[in-house]
Amino acid sequence: MIYLDYSATTPVNKEVLDSFNKACLDYVGNPNSFHSLGVRSNDLINSATKQIADLLKVKESEIIYTSGATESNNLAIKGITLKYQNRGKHIITTALEHSSIYGPISYLESFGFECDFVNIDKNGLVDLEHLKSLMRDDTILVSINSVNSEIGIIQPVKKIIEVLKKYPKCFFHMDMTQSIGKIDIPFDDIDLISFSGHKFFGMKGIGCLIKKEKVMLEPIIHGGKSTTVYRSGTPALPLIVSLSKALRLAYTDISKHYDKVMNLNRKLKNSLSKYDLVRINSNELCSPYILNFSILNIKPETFVHALEKYEVYISTQSACSTTNTISKAVLALTNDEKRASSSLRISISYITTEKEIDEFMTFFDKCYNSLEFVGK
Amino acid sequence: MIYLDYSATTPVNKEVLDSFNKACLDYVGNPNSFHSLGVRSNDLINSATKQIADLLKVKESEIIYTSGATESNNLAIKGITLKYQNRGKHIITTALEHSSIYGPISYLESFGFECDFVNIDKNGLVDLEHLKSLMRDDTILVSINSVNSEIGIIQPVKKIIEVLKKYPKCFFHMDMTQSIGKIDIPFDDIDLISFSGHKFFGMKGIGCLIKKEKVMLEPIIHGGKSTTVYRSGTPALPLIVSLSKALRLAYTDISKHYDKVMNLNRKLKNSLSKYDLVRINSNELCSPYILNFSILNIKPETFVHALEKYEVYISTQSACSTTNTISKAVLALTNDEKRASSSLRISISYITTEKEIDEFMTFFDKCYNSLEFVGK
Repeated sequence: MIYLDYSATTPVNKEVLDSFNKACLDYVGNPNSFHSLGVRSNDLINSATKQIADLLKVKESEIIYTSGATESNNLAIKGITLKYQNRGKHIITTALEHSSIYGPISYLESFGFECDFVNIDKNGLVDLEHLKSLMRDDTILVSINSVNSEIGIIQPVKKIIEVLKKYPKCFFHMDMTQSIGKIDIPFDDIDLISFSGHKFFGMKGIGCLIKKEKVMLEPIIHGGKSTTVYRSGTPALPLIVSLSKALRLAYTDISKHYDKVMNLNRKLKNSLSKYDLVRINSNELCSPYILNFSILNIKPETFVHALEKYEVYISTQSACSTTNTISKAVLALTNDEKRASSSLRISISYITTEKEIDEFMTFFDKCYNSLEFVGK
Repeated sequence: MIYLDYSATTPVNKEVLDSFNKACLDYVGNPNSFHSLGVRSNDLINSATKQIADLLKVKESEIIYTSGATESNNLAIKGITLKYQNRGKHIITTALEHSSIYGPISYLESFGFECDFVNIDKNGLVDLEHLKSLMRDDTILVSINSVNSEIGIIQPVKKIIEVLKKYPKCFFHMDMTQSIGKIDIPFDDIDLISFSGHKFFGMKGIGCLIKKEKVMLEPIIHGGKSTTVYRSGTPALPLIVSLSKALRLAYTDISKHYDKVMNLNRKLKNSLSKYDLVRINSNELCSPYILNFSILNIKPETFVHALEKYEVYISTQSACSTTNTISKAVLALTNDEKRASSSLRISISYITTEKEIDEFMTFFDKCYNSLEFVGK
């Protein structure tokens, strides 16, 4: 099997699973319980939280555990807007976001919130002049991802922050699901940061929202005691421990992993570029973890299915998109419907090998040449 | 160690953990992914969902996976009220609920919703006449738990349903966290049912909301594709598999387990009743899984700490309550502040042994007699 869909989800690292199992078996008490078994469980959560805080260079009190990035994005967007709606009801985002950004924003629009989409330039980067022009007195939230999940565009975080600094009443949220553990983007001056464990060899069902101390939120899940007042529910101790472990493993050798992935990505891009009908959509400024390309006139589903006969797995769009017709992100970047309706995503990881890339290209070649309609 | 706090949380069953691990390792693809690895993951989720549906005698499409009972309760309460608020803004609940019922209701009150508390009778059962008198044309939700988490009061579900049948515009939600897998209450005519895996030897981080087909909900977590339109996010495949396994194990021999626990509960109640200062708060109508009692004049925290020196673990109140001062539930039942401020909860399970109960009583006796202030 050649798995090249790591941006959709990653297999769990064995060490992470071991930590999870150990926590499951050795920590019986409910972390909310008053007795010493509960206190012991709570202590373990606190030490996992401290480890995460140290790795991400944030305060322990700034960490909110969630069930994943989708919940984190919902909590960030609804939490801020509902808490600060007296300041205004204007939100700005981009056309390159995950569905869990558009979902809550659409919901808020039914409550009278307004949303503007900031333009992107020819490289997919946020048009800073357009951003400035969209900023209003009643803009309370700007939500932009660090790395787009389909094409891998890395946004110029610092430059965006420079623009937003002139609007102290507006909060800045970044969905960092595709960069955490891969590209070390500092969190300074970002009010809210979302991510999820299963994108870096952690587990499904656990995520995080980092919420800077000065920021307040209206919870979306209300109730009793938990690790924070912003999210109720029995803390999922083993999942929290697994998140801390997965993060630690991701941050160990983060640059070495990046360099390795960059080399694999270059090799892949060079090989793919040689095919007449291939158009590479990810550019030089993109994350090396993602390589988006189109095979003109070919339905992406057809090609994915052709490859899977060889046990090769790549993706059409982001796993969570509801439509399988056209890639909004590729359309926004290329303004080319043909490319947007024939785009494919390869996503690699530091466990991908050169041999796998070579084998992938062999199978790619077979599929490319065998498809009847290629070249017609 | 003698663990008697199973209503707070249960240790994970090894078979459940094995299923979880197997699913983690053998199912790599994101269930939302388009390729065959994703389809294979999605098929596994579908078969787990079918198993849960069969066990609970509901339709597969009526199952919404959540991160736990707290999220389920939030989704039920906010989901219904926000969807149907044009019908009215009146909610009815009891004084015997979990904090994850009061949390969302308080939140809704800030939006103009009104909440009434239905009286309970001397046995803790909902006063049906009072319920009738509270019902209004604009009542859109009645939320009552099946079994109270502190005292174990089992509500007369059928009789409540009889009352509510006269109000077809009003929805009925039951928090079944303390009864699922223990007491087989039919789901007929209950619109929404919440529960969580870790209360019946499943895992923390997974729960369910059963939502009958005819009922609509406004999601609280919006976004892209998932197992249902009512809750977005990458489905947590291994957690879902573990939930199905834990439920199957809980429903196997459910009556045998109940009888065993009933015998243990009687033994415990008999032994405790012999102590002068002990007042049993749980009555004959309560779930045998929970035994609430007070030791008059004794701070419950003091007694919990005394017991834990012998590695015996019982609880003061529900693990998730934010206050440790006085039990709202015991006060509602007994109307006796002394009892409410000295109440303790023992919660047993089918893995509890007679030997453990005997040993517990030995340690109880030691603590009771050693405490200086007892008998003063």
